[in-house]
Amino acid sequence: MARQNAFYAQSGGVTATINATACGVIETARKHRNSISKVYAGRDGIIGALTEDLIDTSKESAAAIRALRHTPAGAFGSCRYKLKDFDKDRSQYERLIEVFRAHNIGYFFYNGGNDSADTSYKVSQLAHKLGYPLICIGIPKTVDNDLVVTDCCPGFGSVAKYVATSIREAGFDVASMARTSTRVFVLEVMGRHAGWITAACGLAAEKEGDAPHILLFPEVTFDTDKFLARVKDTVEKHGYCAIGVSEGLRDAEGKFLSESGLRDAFGHAQLGGVAPLIANLVKDRLGYKYHWAVADYLQRAARHIASKTDVDQAYAVGKAAVDLAVKGRNAVMPVIVRKSNRPYQWAVGVAELKDIANKEKHMPRDFITEDGFHITAKCRQYLAPLIAGEAPPPFKNGLPVYVKLKNAAVPKKLNTEFKI
Amino acid sequence: MARQNAFYAQSGGVTATINATACGVIETARKHRNSISKVYAGRDGIIGALTEDLIDTSKESAAAIRALRHTPAGAFGSCRYKLKDFDKDRSQYERLIEVFRAHNIGYFFYNGGNDSADTSYKVSQLAHKLGYPLICIGIPKTVDNDLVVTDCCPGFGSVAKYVATSIREAGFDVASMARTSTRVFVLEVMGRHAGWITAACGLAAEKEGDAPHILLFPEVTFDTDKFLARVKDTVEKHGYCAIGVSEGLRDAEGKFLSESGLRDAFGHAQLGGVAPLIANLVKDRLGYKYHWAVADYLQRAARHIASKTDVDQAYAVGKAAVDLAVKGRNAVMPVIVRKSNRPYQWAVGVAELKDIANKEKHMPRDFITEDGFHITAKCRQYLAPLIAGEAPPPFKNGLPVYVKLKNAAVPKKLNTEFKI
Repeated sequence: MARQNAFYAQSGGVTATINATACGVIETARKHRNSISKVYAGRDGIIGALTEDLIDTSKESAAAIRALRHTPAGAFGSCRYKLKDFDKDRSQYERLIEVFRAHNIGYFFYNGGNDSADTSYKVSQLAHKLGYPLICIGIPKTVDNDLVVTDCCPGFGSVAKYVATSIREAGFDVASMARTSTRVFVLEVMGRHAGWITAACGLAAEKEGDAPHILLFPEVTFDTDKFLARVKDTVEKHGYCAIGVSEGLRDAEGKFLSESGLRDAFGHAQLGGVAPLIANLVKDRLGYKYHWAVADYLQRAARHIASKTDVDQAYAVGKAAVDLAVKGRNAVMPVIVRKSNRPYQWAVGVAELKDIANKEKHMPRDFITEDGFHITAKCRQYLAPLIAGEAPPPFKNGLPVYVKLKNAAVPKKLNTEFKI
Repeated sequence: MARQNAFYAQSGGVTATINATACGVIETARKHRNSISKVYAGRDGIIGALTEDLIDTSKESAAAIRALRHTPAGAFGSCRYKLKDFDKDRSQYERLIEVFRAHNIGYFFYNGGNDSADTSYKVSQLAHKLGYPLICIGIPKTVDNDLVVTDCCPGFGSVAKYVATSIREAGFDVASMARTSTRVFVLEVMGRHAGWITAACGLAAEKEGDAPHILLFPEVTFDTDKFLARVKDTVEKHGYCAIGVSEGLRDAEGKFLSESGLRDAFGHAQLGGVAPLIANLVKDRLGYKYHWAVADYLQRAARHIASKTDVDQAYAVGKAAVDLAVKGRNAVMPVIVRKSNRPYQWAVGVAELKDIANKEKHMPRDFITEDGFHITAKCRQYLAPLIAGEAPPPFKNGLPVYVKLKNAAVPKKLNTEFKI
């Protein structure tokens, strides 16, 4: 096979370790110079391919690429941009092939979640139909941990470590103050449709009485009275109550609590998250003083407290993607395979994109306790190894040092406008 | 001087490093067995003294005390409890002396902010009047960094490091996503009356274009139009805008923005913080997609990302307090003295409690840029050394290991009820 260029793009919400995957892709590609000439990255994800806005990663030093391993977020830019329905409008897919052809791109690496696996799969099908040989590899990434087949998703372990650490620390704080001040603390975490991140908070509670005492999952319909009774019981027993709540908590009608009617002075809706709502409910009905936090992007960007397991796995799937590509494997995704729990052992396996595209992994019901307020031992066994190990970035002047790449543009060859 | 016991109490909002001070006090006292018999801690702060609820720290192992150095929050409990006005009602002060007398306490160490310095000072005066020899030492602690005389306050440097790290990380995240998604990110931080923590966010911006781009200080009246113009300008120039805002931001009438009229569906006021308000304003007026975070207790409990400088200083003031006490110094507070900026050198000095009590250190106006939206080079020079160095706690199973003490009670001797 003649030397060809590779295209790499980051897709969807970024994570603390997606750049570790980029590092794995680029470093490995540089070792396969017989097959891969240069790695071009899409500026702002797939949009960069559609608009022929490609970044030449060969202009970056080895040190800069190495630094991606400890840099959060998406170094080339990511985007929330779903390609149009393949069956109704193939023009976007055809445009991708046109750009790839113009830049002699023989490898397509797409780093994202369910949607991205689907896109990669369709691009591979179309390329085949159009007679353009293209190796398409999906690379898993999502803090939501909702991809099927893979045991876990790179990006998730680091969020998990952040939220568990944070609620443990806040728990110590509230415990100190409970006698005269705050009794109830609410931490809102991400995961609109699946409770994986909420569940990860539960890892901080190793012994009876440890924070968090209550978890509110998107999978469990919020029952006000049952919840308040549990809060009261916890405060009476332990002096305080720490609560982890999913942004996706829903009421009995299936409505998000966060959309249940917050209004500012001008009548604007939907200002707040669910944490202030829950906290206020507790204050109103039980009279306890509260504090609440919304971690938002801090949780998924917190490279300073990344899980070493996660960093290693994120790098490994990037490396494996290139290794698979140069072996000629097409329409596949490297995945994490759990070999054993104690000791935790994992390896990188291979899955077909069609088996992953557009499917969603939900939390098994037996990962949540029967009362719906915490995680089970089985869940803990699954989650615990994913947050293991520390991999701090270098620090300078007291702050983590993260790399900003040059991101030099590849000269355009088509020079045709494409509306996105 | 005959051997006497010492009393130590933690006061007010806890920090990531107040236990490092407790560690300094107890470890140093254990080296002065000729003067100090045992260290008794107040359970839940000064309330423990008033109610004769004392903790015998001699029951804790050397390893447990050593672990306080890396454990956030208040190991013995703290409280928000201000003693009554000394001139109107001395009964609480007299009760303290009564308890101290019963337990042969000759040393009073009070670890807190302005109020605590004032209490320590008054207790020392009253003890003298009542003919009860008592050495009273205040020990500085506050995330607000608002004590006078001392160059900085133990507890502040670690919050500063946390907020600067967090907004840097979130900045990388938003920069990645700005093309199609979030353009504006707002992080709300503590500091209701002084902008020290807001200013610390600014340390993350080392180069033109770095996050945060805008800081909203409690010292600078919020000007909607000027702010929106700056946001627009920043997004147009850099593609996104990261904002650090103080919870104490006020409007032209001096009213907290956070109290300006958030209501839930039932009409309950004051659910939210100021971050959602600011974010919504940006959305409404400029149309940018936003995200916001409220760090709340996470920032002051974040021992995992504590400043080594802060940990060392927190320990040092604890140690110095005991050293001063056994030398017979009374009504004083060990303070941090800055010896030089480059290289940063500091030492522990001594201040009179009466010079610290009830005074507040404000941010100098020349620490804020003329436009009111960022910090000056002078401010950066002051703040930078305070976040320097890392002092991570030990980790086990992927999570920081924090100690919970036995907190065994000292048998009561008075057995008289005292209403608090």
